[in-house]
Amino acid sequence: MTGILAIGQYNDTDLAALRAMGAVQVADLDALRAMGQGARAGLRAVAYKGHDGFGAAEMALLPDLGLIANYGVGVDAIDLDAARAAGVRVSNTPDVLNDDVADLAVALLLMQQRRLIAGDALVRGGDWAAGAAPGLFRKVSGRRAGILGLGRIGREIADRLAAFKMEIHYQSRSAKETPGWTRHEDAVSLAAAVDYLFVALVGGAETENAVSAEAIDALGPDGVLINISRGSVVDEAALLDALETGRLGGAGLDVFHGEPDVNPRFAALEQVVLQPHQGSATRETRAAMGQLQRDNIAAHLAGQALPSPVG
Amino acid sequence: MTGILAIGQYNDTDLAALRAMGAVQVADLDALRAMGQGARAGLRAVAYKGHDGFGAAEMALLPDLGLIANYGVGVDAIDLDAARAAGVRVSNTPDVLNDDVADLAVALLLMQQRRLIAGDALVRGGDWAAGAAPGLFRKVSGRRAGILGLGRIGREIADRLAAFKMEIHYQSRSAKETPGWTRHEDAVSLAAAVDYLFVALVGGAETENAVSAEAIDALGPDGVLINISRGSVVDEAALLDALETGRLGGAGLDVFHGEPDVNPRFAALEQVVLQPHQGSATRETRAAMGQLQRDNIAAHLAGQALPSPVG
Repeated sequence: MTGILAIGQYNDTDLAALRAMGAVQVADLDALRAMGQGARAGLRAVAYKGHDGFGAAEMALLPDLGLIANYGVGVDAIDLDAARAAGVRVSNTPDVLNDDVADLAVALLLMQQRRLIAGDALVRGGDWAAGAAPGLFRKVSGRRAGILGLGRIGREIADRLAAFKMEIHYQSRSAKETPGWTRHEDAVSLAAAVDYLFVALVGGAETENAVSAEAIDALGPDGVLINISRGSVVDEAALLDALETGRLGGAGLDVFHGEPDVNPRFAALEQVVLQPHQGSATRETRAAMGQLQRDNIAAHLAGQALPSPVG
Repeated sequence: MTGILAIGQYNDTDLAALRAMGAVQVADLDALRAMGQGARAGLRAVAYKGHDGFGAAEMALLPDLGLIANYGVGVDAIDLDAARAAGVRVSNTPDVLNDDVADLAVALLLMQQRRLIAGDALVRGGDWAAGAAPGLFRKVSGRRAGILGLGRIGREIADRLAAFKMEIHYQSRSAKETPGWTRHEDAVSLAAAVDYLFVALVGGAETENAVSAEAIDALGPDGVLINISRGSVVDEAALLDALETGRLGGAGLDVFHGEPDVNPRFAALEQVVLQPHQGSATRETRAAMGQLQRDNIAAHLAGQALPSPVG
């Protein structure tokens, strides 16, 4: 009994590695709640992989808990105030997924603007051979891109877009050192200045609906919204309305309100590219995320500084 | 009668602009052959948009011809030796399409490695909501990319991939000034050194099957071939065999042998992204191509130097 509880669905490699550390694994928070008091005692660290809210009630079930090691960079499922009050530290897995998420963001834009899913279908289904002409779409390189939230992932997105000769704009709480990029005070003025708006904010209550109906309208009928952060940061009802009425040109979305129960209105939109929250879904990155999660647990149990603490 | 014959299918904007210059338009080379001798006399410039071979026989039909102004950068449909012998100059539309073609090349790679068409279908079709988990794919950033043909388009591709932190290799007849990229002597050694091989050669007899069975095998089961140049530069039979047997990991193809009659074996392959030769198919770029084609014609008729002569 080394005191590790792994909560969530892990792949075989990660599960084996966690078990090798002595971890007990349960499927979800309901399974935690169903554990007996004896089984919960002595658990000093939780490896958490999930989107259900991990709050004060769950922490209270684990009297010896000192660390929640989250799998993923976004810790909006974990109540950080409750953790602080309970003396529980939180860690996440930042940086190792930046490249993958940024790669996906760029791909979503290119696919949307060049209608590449329809292009593949035109060839694959035989319509091109039968004489159907491909359409004429929009040029991507050289346009104006806005990054909402120039953190680690936003920066990776911007660096890639710069190689596509784009003019880079951003909004963030503090000014950043950049190669001449333009800072804006808020999401609306950022959206008004660009053709493409990339949302790279952290999730949580503070950023809820940060991309408002007003920001979406400022982006406009030629604009494209790319969201690879959290569904909660976009006013999804406003987004759907704007897409359906043509007030917004298009979108590329890896995240949604209430995912995976995606609003079925999205499926009817051909100007939207949809992905199943797979920003970090590569073998290389998921392996690195699992390793970093375990490194945080090992450091905690050894009384050492955490490699990637939150806050 | 200003002496301009436009051959091919033009969009409304280009056709109106050509007609404003006094051009007569016909659908294809068969229509040229069907024209009477009187109609053919006095034609000093051809605006050409097509892939059918424009050779000595066609040039002989136009005794006053001085210029074939090709729409597109690739002039492999035009017999340049015959043109030279007939005293006919040839122009094309280089550079204006580089960005679009490079954008597409990058998109094809990202879509292939991250299986983004399947991802969209998983969300759109409701399988994700029903509980299906997205797969785990391959990380793109940081890998090794090879550019076969480091001309104008190849360079644009490489510049973009460098922003994805890739190690860049290339093969070209002469060494180029690069930021430390590695030159290889031939396609096979280039393919052996990289994860991703981008084909950016010009078409024509000299480059036929430049990506040989041996090069494809050197790229290997983890490798991906991206071709945005001409179908003729890849040994397509070898490519299909290697894909079907898993000796090549995947491909992203905008061009094919005998297009648009794409070999139906491609349609059965889920590890391949297919596009209907739409490398330059954006409104902005097609407008620039039409303008440059017309600029060459106007320069020729005015006895001035051509903006973009071939050879």
